[in-house]
Amino acid sequence: MASRVPRLARNVAIVGAGLSKFGAFPQKTSRDLLFEAFSEALGSADKGLAAEDLEALYLGNFSSDLFEQQTHMGPLMAEWLGLLPKPSVRVEDACASSGVAFRQGVLAIASGMYDVVLVGGVEKMTNLPSERVTDTLATASDSVFEFQHAAFTFPGVFGIIASAYLERYGATPEHLMRVAIKNHQNGALNPKAQFTSTIREIMEARARRLRERGEAAPDWKDEMDFLHDPRGNPVVAWPLRLFDCSPVTDGASCLVLASEDAARNFSDRPVYVAATAHASGGALASWPDLTSTPALRVAARQAYEMAGITPEQIDLAEVHDCFTIAEVMATEDLGFFRPGEGALAAAEGLTARDGPRPVNTSGGLKAKGHPVGATGTGQLVELWKQLRGEAGQRQVKGRQLRYGLAENLGGTGGTCVVTILRQGQS
Amino acid sequence: MASRVPRLARNVAIVGAGLSKFGAFPQKTSRDLLFEAFSEALGSADKGLAAEDLEALYLGNFSSDLFEQQTHMGPLMAEWLGLLPKPSVRVEDACASSGVAFRQGVLAIASGMYDVVLVGGVEKMTNLPSERVTDTLATASDSVFEFQHAAFTFPGVFGIIASAYLERYGATPEHLMRVAIKNHQNGALNPKAQFTSTIREIMEARARRLRERGEAAPDWKDEMDFLHDPRGNPVVAWPLRLFDCSPVTDGASCLVLASEDAARNFSDRPVYVAATAHASGGALASWPDLTSTPALRVAARQAYEMAGITPEQIDLAEVHDCFTIAEVMATEDLGFFRPGEGALAAAEGLTARDGPRPVNTSGGLKAKGHPVGATGTGQLVELWKQLRGEAGQRQVKGRQLRYGLAENLGGTGGTCVVTILRQGQS
Repeated sequence: MASRVPRLARNVAIVGAGLSKFGAFPQKTSRDLLFEAFSEALGSADKGLAAEDLEALYLGNFSSDLFEQQTHMGPLMAEWLGLLPKPSVRVEDACASSGVAFRQGVLAIASGMYDVVLVGGVEKMTNLPSERVTDTLATASDSVFEFQHAAFTFPGVFGIIASAYLERYGATPEHLMRVAIKNHQNGALNPKAQFTSTIREIMEARARRLRERGEAAPDWKDEMDFLHDPRGNPVVAWPLRLFDCSPVTDGASCLVLASEDAARNFSDRPVYVAATAHASGGALASWPDLTSTPALRVAARQAYEMAGITPEQIDLAEVHDCFTIAEVMATEDLGFFRPGEGALAAAEGLTARDGPRPVNTSGGLKAKGHPVGATGTGQLVELWKQLRGEAGQRQVKGRQLRYGLAENLGGTGGTCVVTILRQGQS
Repeated sequence: MASRVPRLARNVAIVGAGLSKFGAFPQKTSRDLLFEAFSEALGSADKGLAAEDLEALYLGNFSSDLFEQQTHMGPLMAEWLGLLPKPSVRVEDACASSGVAFRQGVLAIASGMYDVVLVGGVEKMTNLPSERVTDTLATASDSVFEFQHAAFTFPGVFGIIASAYLERYGATPEHLMRVAIKNHQNGALNPKAQFTSTIREIMEARARRLRERGEAAPDWKDEMDFLHDPRGNPVVAWPLRLFDCSPVTDGASCLVLASEDAARNFSDRPVYVAATAHASGGALASWPDLTSTPALRVAARQAYEMAGITPEQIDLAEVHDCFTIAEVMATEDLGFFRPGEGALAAAEGLTARDGPRPVNTSGGLKAKGHPVGATGTGQLVELWKQLRGEAGQRQVKGRQLRYGLAENLGGTGGTCVVTILRQGQS
C-alpha cells in the first residue's frame, strides 16, 4: 500500500442531512423510511435543494436480500425518490454499509464525475422475528466457519471480547453499564431516537409494571441496582446484558454531498469532509489480542493523517456502540484514551455531553437505535447537526466545535470506517 | 442533472485482467473462484504485479446473502487474497454488480485516493436448485409488486419483451436463434466458457443420446431444425426457448486498475478507460415501449459523449445477452443498428467475429456463462484481451482494434452500465 497521505483532487462538503424516526414500524417500508430521511435532508439545506440537483445515489443497505427478499435496492429507491435516470449504487459492508457508501460518494465527487450526490442508508429489520434477525446479522461473520459451524452470533462474539477486556484491564460490568446510562441520557434528548427514555425512567416504568402484576416489588434505588437485576437487565451473553446491546431497528439516513464550489449554491455553512479512511480486518481468530480492533487502528491513523490533526483535536465523536464494550474499545483505538482507560471514561464523565470529549451525543446505536445499513450516515447526520449548532436540547455547549469524528464498524471489525468532518474551511 | 460532460480528474487504465473458468463447480467456493481470476489478473501484467501493489478492492456480488448465506463478502475476500488491511467494498446492482464496482474503482483512482485498485466480481450460484435460482434472481425486480404478487420471474419478463419486439418489427424466433448460434460459435473458442460446444455439436450429441436411448431418431439436418424442436430446445417463456436463455453459472473475474502514471509501472500496453456511464431505470410498467430500454439509451449517450466518439467508432462490443432478445435490443439502444434492425444482425453476419462489428466474441452470457455478479468485469476482461490482441483463437483479426464497448444490465434495465475502453492513449 502506498504510504503517501492521500489527497483528494477536489474538496467535498455536506450541504444537507436528514434522519427518519428510528424504531420498530410495522406499517413502514424501506421506501417510506428513506423518503422520510430524504425529505429532511432536502429541507435542511440553507439555500434549498431539490431532487433535480442530485446527480447520483449511493445507498448503504446491509441485506434487504435476507430481511425483505428484495435485492437491487438502488434503482428501486432512486425511482421512489424521483431521481431516475440517475445512477444508483447499493453498497454493502455489513453494519458499516452506509459509512462505506458515504465514502464512495465523497470519492465520486472528488473524481470530477459529479458535483452533487445523495448518500444514505436504510434498513427494515423488524419484519423478521428477533431470533432470525440475530441469525441474519451473523451472516456478516465468516459465515461457514464462525456461524454455521460454530453457532457464533454477534452477542456471543462481543461477549467474548468483553470478557477478554474486563479480564485484561480489571474493568467491571459496571463500567459498561455506565456507557449505557450515558447513551440513554443522550437518546432521551433526541426526538428521532428509538428509546427516548433514560435508564432511570425505564427502571421506574418496569418497577411499576412488576408491582401492577402483583410480583415482589424490586428494591431498585438507582440504575445500578436495576442493571444488576436479571428482572431488569437479563444476561444475553456474559458479561453482556440486555442494556449492553443495541436494539433491532427500522430507519434511514441521508446526506447531500457537494464539491466545494457547488456547495456554495446550497449552503451558507457547509460542513467539510476533512478525512475519510477505511480498512478491512480479518476473522477474529487472526487478531493478536481481542481487546483492540486491528483494522480500526489502521483506519484511525489514516484519518488523522489525512485531516492533518491529532486525536486531541476531535471535539466530539459518534462511535459504533453496537455493544457497550465496542464504544469502550473504539475510544481507545481512536486514540481518545489509553488502552484500559476507555472503560473509565463514561463513569468519570469524560465522554458525557458536557464532558471534555462528548461521545454519542445522539444516543448512539444503543439508544438512538441501529438500523444497520443506515447507521454510518446516521452518525454523520448527528455530527452535521452538532457542528452547525443545530442539535437542539442535546447540543454540546460552551465551546466552538470544529472537528467531529464518526467511527462505523462492520462485523467485529471486518470493515472499519473513520470519517472526520470539519466546521469551517481548512 | 448537470448537462456538462464529466471529466475525470485523472485518467485510469487497466493493467491486468483475469477470469476463472466459468461453469458449475460443486467443489469450488466463492473464495476459490475469485482466487482463480485474481491469480490470472496478477500474472497478466506485462511488468508483474503483486498483492501488495493493490490499495483497495471493489467487489461486485449480487447476492451471496441468498445464494450462500454469506453477507459482508468484501473483507472475507480481501483476507483470502492477502489484501488486509486494505479497504474492500461490496457493490450490488443485480446482474450489473461488477460493472458498477468497476466504475467505483475508476472513480476512486480518479479522485486521487488510490493509484492501484483491484476490481472484480464473483457469484456462486449452483449451490441452489435451479428453480430457487430463478426465484432468487427475481428479487432483483420490484420484488413485492412484480415477483411476490405477480409471480413474474426474468424469463417471463424477457419473454414479454421479446413478444413485443417480434410483434412490432415483424421479426421471428429464428432471428433470436441466430444470436444463440453465433454466441455458441464464439464460446466454443473460449476455453474459460461454460459451454465450449457449438449448437451443431450440442445437436449432434443430443441426437446420439436419443438414439442410444432407443427413442425415435430426430430428423435434425441443421441447427435450425434442432432449435425448433422441443426435444432439443423446449420453450421456457414464449417466444423464448432454452437456447435463448443464459445458464446458471459459478465464476469470477478481476481487473487491476491504475492511474495513468502508475500504469507505466505495470504495463507496456495499458488499456484506457475512455468512458464510464451508468443510469437507473424504473419498473417495467413505467416504460413507454417494451422494445427499447430507456436507461440504456441514457447511459449510451453519456458514454459516447464522455469518450468523444460515435457508435460507428466502436470496433467490438460485449453486450448483456442474458436472453437473446437482450442482445438484439442492446445493439439498437447502443446505436449500432436502427430500431428493428438489430434482429437481422446475427442472421446477416454483421455481429459475427469476422463481421463488421463483432458482438460477444467471448461467447456472451449465453455461452460463456452468467455468474451474475462476475459478468460486468468478465465482459471487460474479454475487451482487454481483444484490444491487446491476446484473445487466442477467437481474436478479431484483419484490422486495428481501438475502441471496445461493454454493456452490463441489472434486472430488466434498472441498472445500465456502459464502459468504453481504448487501446492506446487519446
